[in-house]
Parts: sequence; C-alpha cells; structure tokens
Amino acid sequence: MEILNSETAYHCLKNVKIGEGTRIFQFVNAYNCELGNDCKVGAFVEIQKGVPIGNRCKISSHSFLCEGVVIEDDVFIGHSVTFINDRFPRASVAEGKLQTEEDWTLEYTTVKKGASIGSGSTILCGITIGENAIVGAGSVVTKDVAPNTIVIGNPAKKMRDI
Amino acid sequence: MEILNSETAYHCLKNVKIGEGTRIFQFVNAYNCELGNDCKVGAFVEIQKGVPIGNRCKISSHSFLCEGVVIEDDVFIGHSVTFINDRFPRASVAEGKLQTEEDWTLEYTTVKKGASIGSGSTILCGITIGENAIVGAGSVVTKDVAPNTIVIGNPAKKMRDI
Amino acid sequence: MEILNSETAYHCLKNVKIGEGTRIFQFVNAYNCELGNDCKVGAFVEIQKGVPIGNRCKISSHSFLCEGVVIEDDVFIGHSVTFINDRFPRASVAEGKLQTEEDWTLEYTTVKKGASIGSGSTILCGITIGENAIVGAGSVVTKDVAPNTIVIGNPAKKMRDI
Repeated sequence: MEILNSETAYHCLKNVKIGEGTRIFQFVNAYNCELGNDCKVGAFVEIQKGVPIGNRCKISSHSFLCEGVVIEDDVFIGHSVTFINDRFPRASVAEGKLQTEEDWTLEYTTVKKGASIGSGSTILCGITIGENAIVGAGSVVTKDVAPNTIVIGNPAKKMRDI
Repeated sequence: MEILNSETAYHCLKNVKIGEGTRIFQFVNAYNCELGNDCKVGAFVEIQKGVPIGNRCKISSHSFLCEGVVIEDDVFIGHSVTFINDRFPRASVAEGKLQTEEDWTLEYTTVKKGASIGSGSTILCGITIGENAIVGAGSVVTKDVAPNTIVIGNPAKKMRDI
Repeated sequence: MEILNSETAYHCLKNVKIGEGTRIFQFVNAYNCELGNDCKVGAFVEIQKGVPIGNRCKISSHSFLCEGVVIEDDVFIGHSVTFINDRFPRASVAEGKLQTEEDWTLEYTTVKKGASIGSGSTILCGITIGENAIVGAGSVVTKDVAPNTIVIGNPAKKMRDI
C-alpha cells in the first residue's frame, strides 16, 4: 500500500473576476468571465467568455458553461452538465474554411435564482430555467422550465411542482 | 506536419491509498480515497473522499465518483460516468448562505463485484447495482439493478438476463 | 473583486501529429493519433491511439475519442461527446486478472465528412454516421445514421431530413 500526495494548483485562468470567498478548484479552464461571492467551481470545469455567475453558486466538476449562459444567484450546477449555444453546429463553412464567430448565431440560456441542474444533464439553447426549478439528473432540457417545478427525462418533462 | 510530445504527470492527489499494480493516469483529482490492487484510473477522473475501490477495477476517463459510492472488486466504470449522492441538491440555504455538509443527506450507492457501467451513464443515488450486471451506455439509472441483468435507457429498464 | 490570470499550457501529448493551423487547447490527453489541418481540440479532451482526424474538424471540450473511431473532414464533435469501442466491457477476466487488449473485440465507428455530433451525446460502437448528418444534443446513438438526416433522443431516432 502506497499513499500518494501531490498538491499543486493547476488552472488555466485568463481574466477571471471573482468575488469574496469564491474558490476555484484544480484543472479549471476559464476566461473572460465573472463570478460573484462565495461560489465554488469544481475540477475540470470550463467557463467561456462573457458568462456571468451570481453569488453563492456551485458549479460542479466536469461541467461546461459556454458563452451565452447566464447564471443568477444561488444556482446549483451538478457534475457533467453541458450547456449549448449553437442550435446547428458545424465545423466548417461551405467554402472549406473552419467556421468563425460570424458564421453562427449565439443563443442565450438563463438559469434563474435558486435553480438546480442535476448532474449529467444537457441543456439546449435559447432556454430559461425558472426560479427554484430542479432539472433531474441525466435530463436533456429542450424548452423552458417553469419556476418551482421539477423536470426529468430526455426530453425533459414536468414531473411535479415543488 | 508536426509531432508533439510533452510527457509530464499532472495529478492532484491528496491522501490516495493505492494497492500494488494500480496505475493513475494524467489529470486526475482524487482525495482521501483508497484503491485496491491492479486498478486503472483514466484521465480527468475525480474521486471524492471516502470512496473505497476494490481490486482489478477500471475507472475510465472523465468519470466522477462522489462520496458515498462504493466500488467492489472487478468493476468496470466506463467513460464519463457520473454518480450522485444528493437527491435534491441546492447551492444555498434559505438564509442566503452556501450549503455546508450539514444541510443535505448523503445517499450511498454500491456497485457490486464484477458489474460494468457503460460510458456516458448517470447513476442516481441510494442504488445498488448487482453482481455482474451491465448498465448500457448512455443510461440513466434510477433504481436498483438486479445481479446478472442488462439495463438500458433513460430511465434504465431491464433489457435481458445475462 | 480579484482578477485571476494564470496562462500556462498543460497538455499530455505523446506522438500526436498535427497539420498546419491545428490548435490544441489546455488539459488535453492524446497519444499516437493524427489530426489534419486547421482543427481545434478543446480542453479536457482525450484522444486515444490510432484515431485519424481529418481537416477542419472541431473536437470540443470534455469529449472522448477512443481507439477505433475515425473522424473524416469537416466534422463537428460537440462538448462531452463519448465514443465507445467495446460492446460488453468488463474490468477483469474470469481468472481474476485485469483484462488486456487480447480479451475484447475492438469495434470501429466512423463519422463521415461534414457530420455534426451534438454535445452530451454517447455514440455506441460499430456505427457509421453519414455525411452531413446531425446528431442532436444529448442523444444516445445505437445504430447507423443516414447521410443528411437529423437524429435525436435515447435511443436516437430520425427526426427529419436536412
């Protein structure tokens, strides 16, 4: 039996603004984004440019927050949650060049105050997840989620009110 | 054409006990856990505190094993498998503070000897996955899986006996 | 408010051949594979040995491309896309040893020119995804996808022609 210890912080953070008490764990890739106070960001998280994250949010490991996502206060993002901002993604344009930012339309998604997104969920774009709503683990959310409701499944459907 | 080589081990391991022959690959975040002999842990895996892992287990890349998960001998955990330990996760408590460990109930999940969890699966909490059972790739497991059965889907249902 | 900056490239690349204009981002684990020109590989991606990737491909963050996967030109792989190459994975063989490469059958999967795989999808093995096809986000693909069609769901079914 052997005991391993190797404690060094490996991040890749570029122009990441954080409020008081916010902690960012190992192996995080984040750039040009802003987090409020008392947030926790887990390992292997990527946060893209322009994403605003409120106060007291938990962004759990392996999650991906793309440009266009807005996270209000007191939001829980589970592990391996994937957001989307491009409804019909393509690698290249017809003329045989890699797509650039001008070749697609960014769609916004907002997670309102107090909502929780269960682990392993995929959240399509152009969606609002209402206040205090819960998205069950492993769901694929394809449309708006009403406040104070629980949705589950692929595609996610309302299970009940909270 | 260019050939890239950059071989350095980047882990973040804190008090990780490993048995003989166990190998941990790049970009692993693990703490206060214990693995038996002859295990393999792939890249981008997170293993939380208190997780016991048996002998001859494969924990594949991008998987997340949270506190409360118990992995017996000869278990295969595929890629991007996500476990859960909190049925109703929230970021904060009503009084406007970030949740602490005292504000939620840990639920345990056990993967019994010889079972295989397919890649991309999400495993809800409070569940036992029986001996030699197989969870098909991309499943969302919401209840116990009987030994020697194959389950698939979201939610996962029995496909057949093995 | 604090602003964090820590810009260092952390890769683990072993014998990775890349064409002109191809960029590999942070925290990538890749070995014995080859990428064409003008590709982008996002953070937290793993690419296993023998995977050929064409020109102008985007391999987005958190995705896993295993041995046996073939990616043609102009392919978009979303975030957290997981491929598979072993239909009945097991950790160990009956005699109580960890499986080796001789104990299982590698199955191939090809993503044809111009196809797009949505984020959060799981792609079973032995599958061909046809030219310009789109796999909707969060899908589990269990069989071939015809060219110029859109499939969605778990298991993925044809939604419509493009």
